[in-house]
Amino acid sequence: MEETFVPFRGIKNDLEGRLLCYKQDWTGGFRAGFRILAPTTYIFFASAIPVISFGEQLERNTNGSITAVQTLASTAICGVMHSIIGGQPLLILGVAEPTVLMYTFMFNFAKDKKDLGEKLFLPWTGWVCVWTALLLFLLAVLGACSIINRFTRVAGELFGMLIAMLFMQQAIKGVVDEFRIPQREDPNAAAFSLSWRFGNGMFALVLSFGLLLTALKSRKARSWRYGTGWLRGSIADYGVPLMVLVWTAVSYIPVNEVPKGIPRRLFSPNPWSSGAYSNWTVVTEMLNVPLIYIFGAFIPATMIAVLYYFDHSVASQLAQQKEFNLKKPPSFHYDLLLLGFLVILCGLIGIPPSNGVIPQSPMHTKSLATLKHQLLRNKLVSTARQSITKNSSLGQLYGSMQEAYNQMQTPLVYQTPPSLGLKDLKESTIHLASIGGQIDAPVDESVFDVEKDIDDLLPVEVKEQRLSNLLQAMMVGSCVGAMPLLKKIPTSVLWGYFAFMAIESLPGNQFWERILLVFTAPSRRYKVLEEYHATFVETVPFKAVVTFTLFQTVYLLLCFGITWIPIAGLLFPLLIMLLVPVRQYVLPKFFKGAHLQDLDAAEYEEAPAMAFSLDDQGRRDGAEILDDVITRSRGEVRHTYSPKITSTTPTSQDVLKPSYSPRVELRAERSPRFVMGHNTKQMVSPGISKLGQSSGGSTPG
Amino acid sequence: MEETFVPFRGIKNDLEGRLLCYKQDWTGGFRAGFRILAPTTYIFFASAIPVISFGEQLERNTNGSITAVQTLASTAICGVMHSIIGGQPLLILGVAEPTVLMYTFMFNFAKDKKDLGEKLFLPWTGWVCVWTALLLFLLAVLGACSIINRFTRVAGELFGMLIAMLFMQQAIKGVVDEFRIPQREDPNAAAFSLSWRFGNGMFALVLSFGLLLTALKSRKARSWRYGTGWLRGSIADYGVPLMVLVWTAVSYIPVNEVPKGIPRRLFSPNPWSSGAYSNWTVVTEMLNVPLIYIFGAFIPATMIAVLYYFDHSVASQLAQQKEFNLKKPPSFHYDLLLLGFLVILCGLIGIPPSNGVIPQSPMHTKSLATLKHQLLRNKLVSTARQSITKNSSLGQLYGSMQEAYNQMQTPLVYQTPPSLGLKDLKESTIHLASIGGQIDAPVDESVFDVEKDIDDLLPVEVKEQRLSNLLQAMMVGSCVGAMPLLKKIPTSVLWGYFAFMAIESLPGNQFWERILLVFTAPSRRYKVLEEYHATFVETVPFKAVVTFTLFQTVYLLLCFGITWIPIAGLLFPLLIMLLVPVRQYVLPKFFKGAHLQDLDAAEYEEAPAMAFSLDDQGRRDGAEILDDVITRSRGEVRHTYSPKITSTTPTSQDVLKPSYSPRVELRAERSPRFVMGHNTKQMVSPGISKLGQSSGGSTPG
Repeated sequence: MEETFVPFRGIKNDLEGRLLCYKQDWTGGFRAGFRILAPTTYIFFASAIPVISFGEQLERNTNGSITAVQTLASTAICGVMHSIIGGQPLLILGVAEPTVLMYTFMFNFAKDKKDLGEKLFLPWTGWVCVWTALLLFLLAVLGACSIINRFTRVAGELFGMLIAMLFMQQAIKGVVDEFRIPQREDPNAAAFSLSWRFGNGMFALVLSFGLLLTALKSRKARSWRYGTGWLRGSIADYGVPLMVLVWTAVSYIPVNEVPKGIPRRLFSPNPWSSGAYSNWTVVTEMLNVPLIYIFGAFIPATMIAVLYYFDHSVASQLAQQKEFNLKKPPSFHYDLLLLGFLVILCGLIGIPPSNGVIPQSPMHTKSLATLKHQLLRNKLVSTARQSITKNSSLGQLYGSMQEAYNQMQTPLVYQTPPSLGLKDLKESTIHLASIGGQIDAPVDESVFDVEKDIDDLLPVEVKEQRLSNLLQAMMVGSCVGAMPLLKKIPTSVLWGYFAFMAIESLPGNQFWERILLVFTAPSRRYKVLEEYHATFVETVPFKAVVTFTLFQTVYLLLCFGITWIPIAGLLFPLLIMLLVPVRQYVLPKFFKGAHLQDLDAAEYEEAPAMAFSLDDQGRRDGAEILDDVITRSRGEVRHTYSPKITSTTPTSQDVLKPSYSPRVELRAERSPRFVMGHNTKQMVSPGISKLGQSSGGSTPG
Repeated sequence: MEETFVPFRGIKNDLEGRLLCYKQDWTGGFRAGFRILAPTTYIFFASAIPVISFGEQLERNTNGSITAVQTLASTAICGVMHSIIGGQPLLILGVAEPTVLMYTFMFNFAKDKKDLGEKLFLPWTGWVCVWTALLLFLLAVLGACSIINRFTRVAGELFGMLIAMLFMQQAIKGVVDEFRIPQREDPNAAAFSLSWRFGNGMFALVLSFGLLLTALKSRKARSWRYGTGWLRGSIADYGVPLMVLVWTAVSYIPVNEVPKGIPRRLFSPNPWSSGAYSNWTVVTEMLNVPLIYIFGAFIPATMIAVLYYFDHSVASQLAQQKEFNLKKPPSFHYDLLLLGFLVILCGLIGIPPSNGVIPQSPMHTKSLATLKHQLLRNKLVSTARQSITKNSSLGQLYGSMQEAYNQMQTPLVYQTPPSLGLKDLKESTIHLASIGGQIDAPVDESVFDVEKDIDDLLPVEVKEQRLSNLLQAMMVGSCVGAMPLLKKIPTSVLWGYFAFMAIESLPGNQFWERILLVFTAPSRRYKVLEEYHATFVETVPFKAVVTFTLFQTVYLLLCFGITWIPIAGLLFPLLIMLLVPVRQYVLPKFFKGAHLQDLDAAEYEEAPAMAFSLDDQGRRDGAEILDDVITRSRGEVRHTYSPKITSTTPTSQDVLKPSYSPRVELRAERSPRFVMGHNTKQMVSPGISKLGQSSGGSTPG
């Protein structure tokens, strides 16, 4: 995206781009059929649960002038509108922690002012929203998002980590509080006696850790060895929501002997209770706000504007990272403009506004990638099966599969790179054709193992559409009605879920992975090379990696520390935006340009895993590989003949080359300076050049 | 071992055999240095903890006429004597669950008889022991143990599983009881109020699962990616005891607010309390037992004799399985004879006798195998390093390593096969020598990676010595003195430890692994072939495997069910011994002889893992491989050039053979009928024959 500051240019580009694929956004979504429900429910829980507990937080902090009902409403309304008229449908909107902090601060300010007070709090926030919106319009129109590319990996990932830390902090705080007497409640209730509090706390530990561990396990279900593929698949898709249900059920086991209120459950007014609707009429009271406060509202508005500008853009950016290789255009400017309108809307009906959220937005893209993979897979498998029954040759087989693949590709104006997957398919077809002239022999599944080989061919693609976003937003809305049911969820399960989200968001975050790398025993570092890994792992000296990571960590802790400061806490996004100049002007003084390039590669292309380890990948079904690729390492799926490479390996001649240990070759191929425990002389061997070729061959251009 | 029923022959053979290596049993032990402490502490905990809680059980069941002090004393005394004058020092003695059941039963019988009663209970058990001992002598002298070989895998592993189930049952029961009011205690104590019981139970869940999970994790420490090798190693060695300490510490966190007795801790009299010694004088009262009961004691004696005969022999057998390839001779008959003496001794001082225990005995051997591996490794590594600095050729290098290896081998008369490892070393030396004539070129670590390649050369060997057994027994004895400390351990931690032991004993148990196999998704079964696996996996049709496993499972449940029947429960060993005839006469009617051979291979030799997967193994350090080999699959470590096989694989030509998927070759090589999901035509390919050779080559003769 070029940096253009010509007014409206950015918005215009965005609109043009998205309009081209708008129809397909819907048709594509519906064509996915019921499978769309997997990512939908996954994201629904990921966005509903935090919103609910943020709502609870707000309720405590604002004496109930804002409740979970309002936060849910905001998330639903903004979500639905964004998914329909928004630019980038991968972006998930929701009421976020920063908003909660902001509103808390504003409430504490307002309630003491006698000519404002709790009564006029919401109308006043209405004005704050108006100002915020105006500022957002300004930013959008002037193309402020053009500089989004300057938010490099460093900034984005640091922000991601910060959010993860905030989630984790919330989880821990939550569990600890289970041992305490909640403020709201009457401390003399039986459930708050010392003994029951102890029991409640311990129960909370069981429930939260139970949810956390089982949820994490269930996400890995695809790689389980037991159970049918269908079962494993659906556990992986729906496991997390399922676990919430399971552990909620568990929380009811000790019902008969235990006093009500143990374990503690969500507290929120029924949407049809009187108080819940007081806010909808805010707009009528806005003019009662004294003039000075109307203008004074501009001050918090600036902070919120900055916050949303950054938050919204980075969330959108993280949802569209290079490695997902999306085919549809981004829409930063237009989305920011729309956000402005949403903010006003929310302000006028007295609910806290929503904005693009992390980690839900990247989670959304990820789950859609898995979906697209499954769809492609099924299509190709059936095609392959057919042409095998017609016992056609390998050539024909790939021919027909290519066709099928093309059908799945909706031709778009925007395509970067022009239909990647297709190219790969060809590539490998050629490869395969050239093998022992089998191209004409009729195929059977021993030659071409449909299930496996197809996985190996598929690139990462994302099912880019609007349906999942719309549906999840509507489901969030339905929560308002389902509040009585939601109240059955124990708070401790929420805390477990918070921890789960924090952990889910870590893998693939290079900052996190560098931290791990630093703690990896030298003798084990080569293992990193066996997985997909970022270029820097091989090109940047370990020392530099450590210093860079150290710098980033210190900076992170600084930001984290700031969030603890009552008011200034809201400025933490500023601190992160400060990274942009720091990155551009300060860091280069301490690091070699090339190294910085690799450590902070915005457009980062990735080194393939060393072939000798790919076999492990190859033998697991596609969705799994994908999970890896996207979570553990965010690469493009390499169409791996590799499983077979290694399967056919132990040709007697190879057996006679025991001494070229993997690491030797790595070193020879592209010296990963720190990989070796002990220094060693280089050695040239036939194996090396070959490895060079092959893994070179297996990397997409 | 040939079946000889000539009186005393068996005992004579055993003695001759063991005497030859008696001296070395000690010298070898001491030469191991401080490292011997790893297996020692590991086994010490494994045998002390159950013994303590069995002691508690007995105390409740016998109104305190027997306490943990007595069970510990028995375990210590018998352990020390066995380790010094016993035959097979790998065998661990201890008071086992069956003994507890037996004594409970006898107590219930005695206490109601007015001319016997609680007072004469111990003296009477004295007589029972005398009779038991006589029967054991008889069995030993007549060479009853000769038929031990007829206790095939089926019986042994079924027994192992049963014990595991009993341990797990104990664990679950224990945790559940944490929610209840213990019998012994005063139900009105604060700690037993409904609320505190709830808290206590939940806390117990946290502690027990905490211990279980962390203990299991820590055993895998060697394969962790983080932390230094030294740290990882010691965590793997001492992690379990460490975790017991950690979680005991955790149990003290909520001390200030919580009433005493939460969490519940071990209950046992101080060894210096009056009651604890009442039993030592039992022998003096034995003549007060009425004649009828003296002879009546013969009835329980027969049961106990059968029990011990079986239990002792099987424990010893499981500790000496083929795949550990021990170099020193077994000693079934003599050990049984000695057991007789120990039983009398225990009887006369009024403590319950000990016998060979499962799973501790096999755990002992396993931990000693790890130890031996480390010792060999260090020795060879240092040697290799030296000759590299002297930059000698590959040939010389291996020469010197061979020497070093020989030095570690204590020449014994008994060696089956004659110093295996040595042979392998040679083999691979030749292999290596023949490679690109490097034999004369000076070596550097890029050619010969000391750390790794040596691991690949080492076979499984066990540090067979008496020291570890003696030390652990003495440590158990010291527990009597340390009782005040032991009382600090929460009972819930014990339950966690029980579950840990149950789970630790499963892997490698083919019965268990067949059960897993049955539940493995067809599409994933090939994964089994990638690991070391028993022959049957490839030679026996899946149907047969299933039926056989089903039969075994039913039989297991039968045995498990029987243990629930109050008195008959003691006869469960009989039921298992019944398997011997069943195996010999009934099963052959339902299964092909060859299949039965493989499914129940007593002398079972194992198929190597398919080379294409070994690379994964090869790249992990030896101890790890070993853990796998011994636990997950109990194979001999294959001296794997394989890691390098696969490292050098992606030679361009290989890349061009994508279509021979691993499974195809397996099928071609030795048709594992069930491995394929979908039936397929055979296909001959160059790759196949090569795989044949190479993996053939990598299997030890």
